[in-house]
Amino acid sequence: MIEVTAKLARYLVDARYGDVPEPVRHQARRSLLNWMGCAIGGAQHPTLDRALAALKPFSGPEQASLLGRRERLDILHAALMNGIASHVFDFDDTHLKTIIHPAGPVASAILALAEQRRLPGEALMLALVLGVEAECRIGNAVYPAHYDIGWHITGTAGVFGAAAAAGKMLGLDGQRMTWALGVAGTQSSGLREMFGTMCKSFHPGRAAQNGLAAAHLAAEGFTSSDRVLEAPRGFAHVMSTARDFSEITEGLGESFEIALNTYKPFACGIVIHPTIDGCIQLRNEHGLKGAEIRRIDLQVHPLVLELTGKRMPKVGLEGKFSVYHSAAVAIIHGRAGEQEYSDEAVRDPRIIALRDRVEAVAEPRVREDEAYVSVTLEDGRVLDKHVAHAIGSLERPMTDAQLEEKFRGLAEDVLGPERTRRAIQLCWDADRLKDAGELARAAVP
Amino acid sequence: MIEVTAKLARYLVDARYGDVPEPVRHQARRSLLNWMGCAIGGAQHPTLDRALAALKPFSGPEQASLLGRRERLDILHAALMNGIASHVFDFDDTHLKTIIHPAGPVASAILALAEQRRLPGEALMLALVLGVEAECRIGNAVYPAHYDIGWHITGTAGVFGAAAAAGKMLGLDGQRMTWALGVAGTQSSGLREMFGTMCKSFHPGRAAQNGLAAAHLAAEGFTSSDRVLEAPRGFAHVMSTARDFSEITEGLGESFEIALNTYKPFACGIVIHPTIDGCIQLRNEHGLKGAEIRRIDLQVHPLVLELTGKRMPKVGLEGKFSVYHSAAVAIIHGRAGEQEYSDEAVRDPRIIALRDRVEAVAEPRVREDEAYVSVTLEDGRVLDKHVAHAIGSLERPMTDAQLEEKFRGLAEDVLGPERTRRAIQLCWDADRLKDAGELARAAVP
Repeated sequence: MIEVTAKLARYLVDARYGDVPEPVRHQARRSLLNWMGCAIGGAQHPTLDRALAALKPFSGPEQASLLGRRERLDILHAALMNGIASHVFDFDDTHLKTIIHPAGPVASAILALAEQRRLPGEALMLALVLGVEAECRIGNAVYPAHYDIGWHITGTAGVFGAAAAAGKMLGLDGQRMTWALGVAGTQSSGLREMFGTMCKSFHPGRAAQNGLAAAHLAAEGFTSSDRVLEAPRGFAHVMSTARDFSEITEGLGESFEIALNTYKPFACGIVIHPTIDGCIQLRNEHGLKGAEIRRIDLQVHPLVLELTGKRMPKVGLEGKFSVYHSAAVAIIHGRAGEQEYSDEAVRDPRIIALRDRVEAVAEPRVREDEAYVSVTLEDGRVLDKHVAHAIGSLERPMTDAQLEEKFRGLAEDVLGPERTRRAIQLCWDADRLKDAGELARAAVP
Repeated sequence: MIEVTAKLARYLVDARYGDVPEPVRHQARRSLLNWMGCAIGGAQHPTLDRALAALKPFSGPEQASLLGRRERLDILHAALMNGIASHVFDFDDTHLKTIIHPAGPVASAILALAEQRRLPGEALMLALVLGVEAECRIGNAVYPAHYDIGWHITGTAGVFGAAAAAGKMLGLDGQRMTWALGVAGTQSSGLREMFGTMCKSFHPGRAAQNGLAAAHLAAEGFTSSDRVLEAPRGFAHVMSTARDFSEITEGLGESFEIALNTYKPFACGIVIHPTIDGCIQLRNEHGLKGAEIRRIDLQVHPLVLELTGKRMPKVGLEGKFSVYHSAAVAIIHGRAGEQEYSDEAVRDPRIIALRDRVEAVAEPRVREDEAYVSVTLEDGRVLDKHVAHAIGSLERPMTDAQLEEKFRGLAEDVLGPERTRRAIQLCWDADRLKDAGELARAAVP
């Protein structure tokens, strides 16, 4: 009998920050920065307002901060709200092997816990690495069959990650860590049917909250099965039609899933990213402004037109499903952040004028992270750009500077430039903080 | 396209207590009484102590009572704790068509809400009827395939029942009731792998808490899919291999699932109930005490020996898996409540002496709710009893007086006889209470 859950729990209990190589630590800092920016920017969304209106009357003591807001809640509710905020723009990180958004469930749980208990930054960062490890390995074991059934894997796997990370911070022993995974797993939930509604971002939030609760229950001796992952009536059999437990048990401590994390440079569906990338490069290389352009021709993967072929978006959200709008904002603003997908942006006459001059052709030999962009100027010159791998892909990750720029785009309107600078710096220095709660407080307007 | 969720939501919104026939109302009162007794009796269990130690630090304002305890918590945590307490002895009600324990998820949610908002008893009882209706119909639609996969149906279907009942109390309109079911359904969870651990009773508790939260979120406009039950990536397709939506949509308002609720007279596995029933009948008819008995011969369904063939139980919990111990306590004490399965009871020399004189034979032609009991006295007389349907079955339901007796067995040690009497009376009068919170406060020691 393979002991999958117990083996994972043992690894989580024994792992030390000294065992985590510096490049992995740096990726953890990048994940933290990206998550925090998304949460600060998302915190003003109506999804948060409604969740708070509904649940704040039941919150306990003011133990933890909400990123990007002034309310303080008990740590379970803070984990929920920060998890929702970090996913509400669909702008957070992606573990491409499983399309899990790893940081949301994990970081939302442990930053609240670290703030309440005044734990050091090193404990936070180790828990982040390990929580993502548990979450993504469990995802690897059941993906894609589990996702294909209709499970939103960020919720279903995320709850394990949150429990593992919080359990690590609470110093659980092997038995209690096994129970934490068990109490988490019996709450694993989240249906893809909810995509397009407020429940989508609810999933990572609830995963954070439920995993955090699971760790606290286990700490007090609340028992569960010792075999939640592998038992015939456990997670991997009940919630998936296929599974490979070696994805969970092999090579623990030798590789780190967080090293495979990626970050979206643009606040829209990933299939448009190569186009936007090419347009921004041409703009910056040639000082383009838009008015001098006669036409823009795109050759893209067929999915681009299928998913994002909307010619005339009328509201901001529709802009995210328009490769035409996206190309236009990339030329005019040199970016495609949340602001470029506002209702105002899609109604901006300059953007509409350029959008109408964009033509896109589906080309089966173009890969998903590839695009050919050709800009014809009014003076007849033609400027070409081939994007072999879009920025943000594993092959061409966003630089630290680009992540900072993304953070500023999300956070400056909320925190102002000075506090935004400080929050960025705290993320880079996270391992060295005596009190990781500083991070949370720095994100409050 | 069948609109399953919307149709159910519309029924829930429109239903009035005037439409509920008196026999159904009476069954609702019986369900309430049985649930409350189980929760009061279960409230001292270590499962509760640990859950409270872990989660009370995060509780909000003291809005609602815990049955059988002195703590007061916010309504979400009160729903969780009361739901756990009501299931911890496995002594609660059973909807035999689905083996859902219907009251736990529903009543735990709405009694807390009624107490906080000082809602009248009629609102509580209507919500109880409707919550059980939603929960059991959804269960009917996917049982047994859903259960066979490994889902603990009391948790997975219960969360819908709690949301429906709480949503009714909050006065949700059709759209919001649909969202309440959606937010509930995307949290549907609970693995049978957890049976035998503290997580089993956690499931109805969490279902109550999550359904209650779902109703509050929907009330504030938190959106979900409108088709959580029927969509290709919704509950019934993702979480079951078979489904029949007509079980949800047909005959709404014409029949009531709560009318099919049953109650366990004895605090052990249901397969031993016919034996206990027969022993108690013989004891009462002949004034048996135990010492005058030479031997007891049982003819029982084969499952009895398979599941409960433990000859020499050493701790109370093992007694629940011993038809021998159960027959002995039935003769000696005339009952088989929680006290008859204590550690003391299984070590009682009088009970051990009689237990050793019990012989049981598996007899394939005996049905599961049937037993033949034959008592041979020292003077040579033989007393026979054939139990065709055990007490507590649909064919031979417990009488109101027997439910009261069960309640006393669970509650008197906690509340004392006077308060126990009053709590029973309040359950019978529940429809007429101006403030249903009286029920909750009456159950506090």
